[in-house]
Amino acid sequence: MTMSDAAIVVEQDRRELDLIDRVQRSFDNCTDPRLKELMYALVKHLHAFLRETRLTEEEWTRAIEFLTAVGRITDDKRQEFILLSDVLGVSMQTIAINNAAYKNATEATVFGPFFAEGSPEVAMGGDISGGAAGEPCWVHGSVTDTSGNPVANALIEVWEADAEGFYDVQYGDGRTAARAHLYTGADGTYCFWAITPTPYPIPHDGPVGEMLEAVGRSPMRASHLHFMVTAPGLRRLVTHIFVRGDEYLGSDTVFGVKDSLVKDFQRPSTTSAPGGRSIDGPWSAVQFDIVLAPAEA
Amino acid sequence: MTMSDAAIVVEQDRRELDLIDRVQRSFDNCTDPRLKELMYALVKHLHAFLRETRLTEEEWTRAIEFLTAVGRITDDKRQEFILLSDVLGVSMQTIAINNAAYKNATEATVFGPFFAEGSPEVAMGGDISGGAAGEPCWVHGSVTDTSGNPVANALIEVWEADAEGFYDVQYGDGRTAARAHLYTGADGTYCFWAITPTPYPIPHDGPVGEMLEAVGRSPMRASHLHFMVTAPGLRRLVTHIFVRGDEYLGSDTVFGVKDSLVKDFQRPSTTSAPGGRSIDGPWSAVQFDIVLAPAEA
Repeated sequence: MTMSDAAIVVEQDRRELDLIDRVQRSFDNCTDPRLKELMYALVKHLHAFLRETRLTEEEWTRAIEFLTAVGRITDDKRQEFILLSDVLGVSMQTIAINNAAYKNATEATVFGPFFAEGSPEVAMGGDISGGAAGEPCWVHGSVTDTSGNPVANALIEVWEADAEGFYDVQYGDGRTAARAHLYTGADGTYCFWAITPTPYPIPHDGPVGEMLEAVGRSPMRASHLHFMVTAPGLRRLVTHIFVRGDEYLGSDTVFGVKDSLVKDFQRPSTTSAPGGRSIDGPWSAVQFDIVLAPAEA
Repeated sequence: MTMSDAAIVVEQDRRELDLIDRVQRSFDNCTDPRLKELMYALVKHLHAFLRETRLTEEEWTRAIEFLTAVGRITDDKRQEFILLSDVLGVSMQTIAINNAAYKNATEATVFGPFFAEGSPEVAMGGDISGGAAGEPCWVHGSVTDTSGNPVANALIEVWEADAEGFYDVQYGDGRTAARAHLYTGADGTYCFWAITPTPYPIPHDGPVGEMLEAVGRSPMRASHLHFMVTAPGLRRLVTHIFVRGDEYLGSDTVFGVKDSLVKDFQRPSTTSAPGGRSIDGPWSAVQFDIVLAPAEA
């Protein structure tokens, strides 16, 4: 058997497509239809990547080494696979898919790895900073449904990094700071003191950090304050607000920024602040009106 | 702002496509053009998978947990990421892409994790079994180029599992068995004694084994004998031969089987075997004529 150049191309194509077919058919006995669908699609897209890029054996080896390094650094405290998903936009795309656009509902963004259960409750107008270093920031707004009806007693959970760029849980000393929850009032409004968000890098001393370095990307996240808002009959909202003018808005390394979530952080020049507080020095104030989609949307 | 159903679909699409665009553009500053190409393609195909399957947040979490478990079991002796690549056909597709069909050249197949450097040399007609349990098997054939010219002094490295289904390196006791190398003669022929290949499972007590179980797939590899053939000016060939009639030919869990690599293992009824050997009991004989592509093919 000898082959012309055209016949060689045809034969090569046949071999590659036949392999995809065999791999997909290997899942034919899967009794879970959704798992089967996922495996078929995974094989289809993985092999499309290999065929389109003509991945070399060296590159395959490098990919195996990279995943091995991601696995090695991952433990109970450090989740490098989530970080990898984040910097490839996979986390954000999953959130986009599962939080479908709905009328004027507030957009969702990444949950991140720093939420903690059991945060302290603060009263309306209270301070969530818990001693965390940072400039005071007055946060206020309302929670409504998409028809504009106020949502009373909605649970608002908030958390953020301190001025050093760390969340309380990253210190490993058991502290709770810059993290709390509160409830909206009967008119659907809320307000609290926090600290003005500042930018910080994701953990970048591991293989994901090396990858970002190799491709010329920054590890920085745009300054943000996390919100999770929960109310009966409405879709739970996981989101952030971002600071208009922040230098990392266009390059947030996990792609969490959405235009609708970028807010004006006012810089009042008065020392007389809300809640009867008197502040010597800079502080900020931001309004965030939250609109929740119906639970079934 | 309120939206009609059609407008919601359009807006959802816009959000998902805009995200892909932003993730791809994040690699714009990558100074290595090939790395940039690979990252663009990776993002494209990963996000196509997410969008096509509408992956749920629960499924995303399960995928992160699965990869974390693959990372946890992987160490210097156990490479679960390669196993995962193998059972998804990714290893085999990479080999197919990098060993393009060329005239009548022998097809390549997976390298596997059990090759070891520094195998003992055996003389022409010698025995590679090194005491490994198994039925004797006489292996003979030739090495030629695609024009039929014999290739003298080609290096042939061979390795295989024993009758228990284990390679020597899996025993962890430093033994060397069922593994050797030899050279073709001046006429391009070779022959040696090995053991008749038998089927065995890939390591399936980890997350990849769990995955195979969940989708109703067998962990078995079809019986095979590994070859790596090296000669100057010719493309190095990494392949196996398989046993015609083997029960796992159609379900080899790493997709290594190619029709052209399935060989007739004869069952001679005589006790007088090649090389003046006398065998009381069953033995087999197989011919494998190897054709090497040019190095530049």
